[in-house]
Amino acid sequence: MMAGPRVTLRDVARKVGVHASTVSRVLNSSTRSMVSPEIARRVDEAARDLGYRPNPIAYGLKTRRSLTVGVVIPDLTDPLFPPMIRGIDDTLARAGYTTIVANTDNDRERERVILERMRGRHVDALILGSTRREDVLDEDEVPVVLINRSIDVGGVTAVVSDNPGGIGQAIDHLASLGHRRIAHVAGPQYVSTGIARYQAYRSKMEDLGLPVTPDLVGHCESYSRGEGKRVLSLFLQSREPLTAVIAANDLLALGCYDALKAAGLRCPGDISVVGFNDMPFVDMMDPPLTTVRIPQYDIGAAAARAVLERMNEPAGGFEIIVLPSTLVVRASTAPPP
Amino acid sequence: MMAGPRVTLRDVARKVGVHASTVSRVLNSSTRSMVSPEIARRVDEAARDLGYRPNPIAYGLKTRRSLTVGVVIPDLTDPLFPPMIRGIDDTLARAGYTTIVANTDNDRERERVILERMRGRHVDALILGSTRREDVLDEDEVPVVLINRSIDVGGVTAVVSDNPGGIGQAIDHLASLGHRRIAHVAGPQYVSTGIARYQAYRSKMEDLGLPVTPDLVGHCESYSRGEGKRVLSLFLQSREPLTAVIAANDLLALGCYDALKAAGLRCPGDISVVGFNDMPFVDMMDPPLTTVRIPQYDIGAAAARAVLERMNEPAGGFEIIVLPSTLVVRASTAPPP
Repeated sequence: MMAGPRVTLRDVARKVGVHASTVSRVLNSSTRSMVSPEIARRVDEAARDLGYRPNPIAYGLKTRRSLTVGVVIPDLTDPLFPPMIRGIDDTLARAGYTTIVANTDNDRERERVILERMRGRHVDALILGSTRREDVLDEDEVPVVLINRSIDVGGVTAVVSDNPGGIGQAIDHLASLGHRRIAHVAGPQYVSTGIARYQAYRSKMEDLGLPVTPDLVGHCESYSRGEGKRVLSLFLQSREPLTAVIAANDLLALGCYDALKAAGLRCPGDISVVGFNDMPFVDMMDPPLTTVRIPQYDIGAAAARAVLERMNEPAGGFEIIVLPSTLVVRASTAPPP
Repeated sequence: MMAGPRVTLRDVARKVGVHASTVSRVLNSSTRSMVSPEIARRVDEAARDLGYRPNPIAYGLKTRRSLTVGVVIPDLTDPLFPPMIRGIDDTLARAGYTTIVANTDNDRERERVILERMRGRHVDALILGSTRREDVLDEDEVPVVLINRSIDVGGVTAVVSDNPGGIGQAIDHLASLGHRRIAHVAGPQYVSTGIARYQAYRSKMEDLGLPVTPDLVGHCESYSRGEGKRVLSLFLQSREPLTAVIAANDLLALGCYDALKAAGLRCPGDISVVGFNDMPFVDMMDPPLTTVRIPQYDIGAAAARAVLERMNEPAGGFEIIVLPSTLVVRASTAPPP
């Protein structure tokens, strides 16, 4: 068999003059109907002409196994990730695989180099927690599973938590305490969790007949304590009355604590705060944080199982595996003053 | 050039009938004087007969660079490590290297497999945070630098924090508040940090003329919140009066919080608690933890610089780089009741 540079999704896309995501949709039976029949026909033709090999064959060509799976995460200092990695690691270790982790630090160039080197070192598969909504992934070389975040185009298996369910429970809880002016410190909108939680907030607030106005929503540029503090401080300066805040994750919620402290306000006496993730140690904070618990370890374990399945039987389609979220009520929420 | 199985330190040791650490000492000019001249002569002879190649030559043989450095840590869920890894990662990234991290979960078998696979994948160097005091390391294949922990035999560069300095400041602080019966929740004694902090505690207590009795010291089997709770609970049941506890790290200190809560005691009203590491988020705990800050990011950066130096100039000896520790006084310490 002759070896040459492998034809990728992007090569097919270039020939047809469409985006790679379109090619991905056409070649995946579950998304093919999203593309016009004419484009689909031209993609099929180009793929055949160029000799594009879909995953099953490409996987079959791999003979040298490294018994190593690469995990790429956006921020290792976010305490959310270590328990997920532990779930991945335990599950893969039982199957004889070693997990290696790399941290992009939310830097796209660093991410590109990591992926290139991990593939170059022949990891047998990749689990990605760093993807952005716009990303298009090519599973030509190794199977890929997404963790915590999904991509808009789909086509790749992802294990995520129930974002609408979690936000819904948080708003129900605050509403039942008597809150009406509930603000949202939203996550970055280029990440699936950021937009999903923001949309869930809007939709649930509307369902309950609660006010959804622009002055109740602030968008953070990243998931960090500093951004949470910055954005809630803006709310507090604007003098719009609010009695509760839902932060899109726990780091943002801790930043809200910082903003309240700096403004001389008490939590929950003046303003209630709800987080998302139930990351380690938030039960020991002052006050212990009310937050949406996502099953971090189980998300990792499910991603590991999915990647093991794809290594064994790469022919399958993709699925979005949604694990349940549960509100954990602690001491950062109380009736409005 | 003929390739065969590489002769290691252990092969030389077996031939002479001594421990590998002895061979390491003999072959390192800075430690050779610790071994008797007769043994040193026999080791030299065996090394020559077997064709043992010291590091500089072995390094010279490496041609294919992976531009990847492996970092091995004992417990990724300990918040101490992410900032260290970030220090490593930033420093290595500037030099064009990618960092990959693996977690042993304190499991020696998993550690063995990780090291085997990392070397098999040709990482260019290793930074190890998982070593135990008894370990003997062979730098034949790639340069190795230790982080946070050292090994008894020495011979390998290690970047650690000032354990005696940190513990000394903690005891000075408690003594100045009026505490005399200060207990120590000690770390595992098979790890350098565990024994160094324990010895520093004994020595400083004696210096100040404070009681050092067996009933004031409890040893934990691992650095974990659960072990801290277990060991302090035993103290509290023994009815020996104590007014302050120094925990060997912050996870153990948080376990002490749990034990006090379970016993209906207040911190610091009834018992003061001091931790070690100043890991992220302990400033937000209830109460904010008084602890010894170690420069986590800088320790990582120093280890990365050391490993870059060893890759460039592998001929050098080894050094123990000690970075300063500083007590940070927060609200978990107060005068005794």
